[in-house]
Amino acid sequence: MPSHPRSPLLITTGEPAGIGPELVLMLAAQGRLPDRTLAVGDPDMLRQRAALLALDVEVVEAAPEEGVASSKGRLVVSPVWLEAPVSPGVLNPANARYVLNTLQVAVDACLQGRAAAMVTAPLHKGVIIEGGFANFTGHTEWLRDACGVDEVVMVLATDKALHAQARSWNGSGDLRVALVTTHLPLRDVADAITYERVQRVSRLLVEDLKRQFGIAEPRIAVCGLNPHAGEDGHLGREELEIITPALNALRAEGLAIQGPLPADTLFTPRHLAGVDAVLAMYHDQGLAVLKYAGFGQAANITLGLPLVRTSVDHGTALDLAGRGVADPSSLAVALNLACRLADQRAQSVHSGN
Amino acid sequence: MPSHPRSPLLITTGEPAGIGPELVLMLAAQGRLPDRTLAVGDPDMLRQRAALLALDVEVVEAAPEEGVASSKGRLVVSPVWLEAPVSPGVLNPANARYVLNTLQVAVDACLQGRAAAMVTAPLHKGVIIEGGFANFTGHTEWLRDACGVDEVVMVLATDKALHAQARSWNGSGDLRVALVTTHLPLRDVADAITYERVQRVSRLLVEDLKRQFGIAEPRIAVCGLNPHAGEDGHLGREELEIITPALNALRAEGLAIQGPLPADTLFTPRHLAGVDAVLAMYHDQGLAVLKYAGFGQAANITLGLPLVRTSVDHGTALDLAGRGVADPSSLAVALNLACRLADQRAQSVHSGN
Repeated sequence: MPSHPRSPLLITTGEPAGIGPELVLMLAAQGRLPDRTLAVGDPDMLRQRAALLALDVEVVEAAPEEGVASSKGRLVVSPVWLEAPVSPGVLNPANARYVLNTLQVAVDACLQGRAAAMVTAPLHKGVIIEGGFANFTGHTEWLRDACGVDEVVMVLATDKALHAQARSWNGSGDLRVALVTTHLPLRDVADAITYERVQRVSRLLVEDLKRQFGIAEPRIAVCGLNPHAGEDGHLGREELEIITPALNALRAEGLAIQGPLPADTLFTPRHLAGVDAVLAMYHDQGLAVLKYAGFGQAANITLGLPLVRTSVDHGTALDLAGRGVADPSSLAVALNLACRLADQRAQSVHSGN
Repeated sequence: MPSHPRSPLLITTGEPAGIGPELVLMLAAQGRLPDRTLAVGDPDMLRQRAALLALDVEVVEAAPEEGVASSKGRLVVSPVWLEAPVSPGVLNPANARYVLNTLQVAVDACLQGRAAAMVTAPLHKGVIIEGGFANFTGHTEWLRDACGVDEVVMVLATDKALHAQARSWNGSGDLRVALVTTHLPLRDVADAITYERVQRVSRLLVEDLKRQFGIAEPRIAVCGLNPHAGEDGHLGREELEIITPALNALRAEGLAIQGPLPADTLFTPRHLAGVDAVLAMYHDQGLAVLKYAGFGQAANITLGLPLVRTSVDHGTALDLAGRGVADPSSLAVALNLACRLADQRAQSVHSGN
């Protein structure tokens, strides 16, 4: 059931001991939240955090369907209650279930058409695992399972590249980077790069650049797995045996895909010109350069879900929590992106695309 | 035997079918070669390439010890003769030995004090191997063996970070990046990260930042191997079991080393502030961001050798060879860096440091 374009934008406030709650409060205090924003978390915790940081924000409780608007100095919250008290900077596994509950509330509201999109503040993987969820590997994977889909793709984009229909590379240094593998130990990456996976992720990336970003014919550049993309097999054979055959088959279907290209030269103007997204084989290959380019002005998007989900590009920063010094820029970017993607998606649903 | 600071700067012209020869000729035609420059390669091939590209350069033959100066329109060359004729863009394994001979001439001249430094234009690894040198894995490793040292460190730096004594990170986006492993298939990287190797490379990096760059107390930031630097063991255990213990021991010796830090957030102003070099665990983790930052204005430096060696940051670009369209910027950067490093080294030798 597609949501109305003006239905609320949910922000899950994430790990309560981290910077997530205060980032949301800071944007509320500064009047930088879209009026359709609805936070998901413990209202009392948010009130205490606002008091601790002397942020002039009134926290109001309401469910997604009540249509209450946030505004400067006023944050509307869909209540989920903590399981244990929280101090900034101090993790408590007893609140692992609370964090997952905020996600479930947001997913349900999106899937049932009561919300337009969800934006996630950072959670802490380790404490969720310690809290009894041994198989938890991250937001992205949890959402995949919660939505019952087989494959999702993690994309990070710098601010200017987030605008729907903008080309990724416009000479300004802005980038969109998608990943074939995400949160895997480096020693497991090579075996995770399969013919099928490269094809599934590439197809999903192309489809969602069309559907969510409104790019008619997305053009992708794909990194090799090995240094110098294997240098004709001298530095690894995955390019010859897996990646190139997979991409050749996609090209034969008409997809505009270049590569595999050496990752260390792909991120230069000659190769980025006219490319809508770069597909990297693994986390640090793609994200080190993206975050260097983005400087905290980037956001994370999950493609392949039956809902719109964006996220900050950073972690819980426990060392900064409760001090009011964290930078809410990435959350602001993620929120604005979620608005645009939700509107784009509503449009393409209504136009039957 | 330390060379005199004004002794020649050698450029090995690299793979003769690639862009190396024309990059040297372009800089000669533009008057961008330091006057102490002496090319190493086949003078006739260089004359033919100059004629093909209509570059107004006189090629003069001379040995390093003859003290002949290059100038605008005049390139002095220490002759090494091709084994087979060459066409731009067409590799010929018969010239593999020629390419290695140019390196040997340069190494001998540097080690015997007849040259101040060597700068290498790109060679093609595959054709050297095909030419009968099955164990050849690259310039850097060949130089290590030719100089009889156990370990060298590959460092890339963007132009502004190349200046001796400049801090790597000055807010301009300039970087120095060193690598623990270089030209290894990705699936072999994790096993190559050992306690001893992390320590050897870190020490060598610190020592050569002092000796070659003149930085009194170098400060290093080290990347983790795994995404999020292993996230407390949830995404790989090498940080807990190998990298952190190795760095702790170095810190106990007084070295200014931070890390291991997540590679995807290390390359941001908060972490780069006051850091002289970043040590990445493997090729694409460090070099994708370096080359994005450098845009062809970066150079490669080999630390740990008993000579000064710099290099371009790119390959042979066979598709561009013989067309005069390749960009000599990185070679110019590598040359200027070699001059500065040679002078710094001569100074520190003369002052007994």
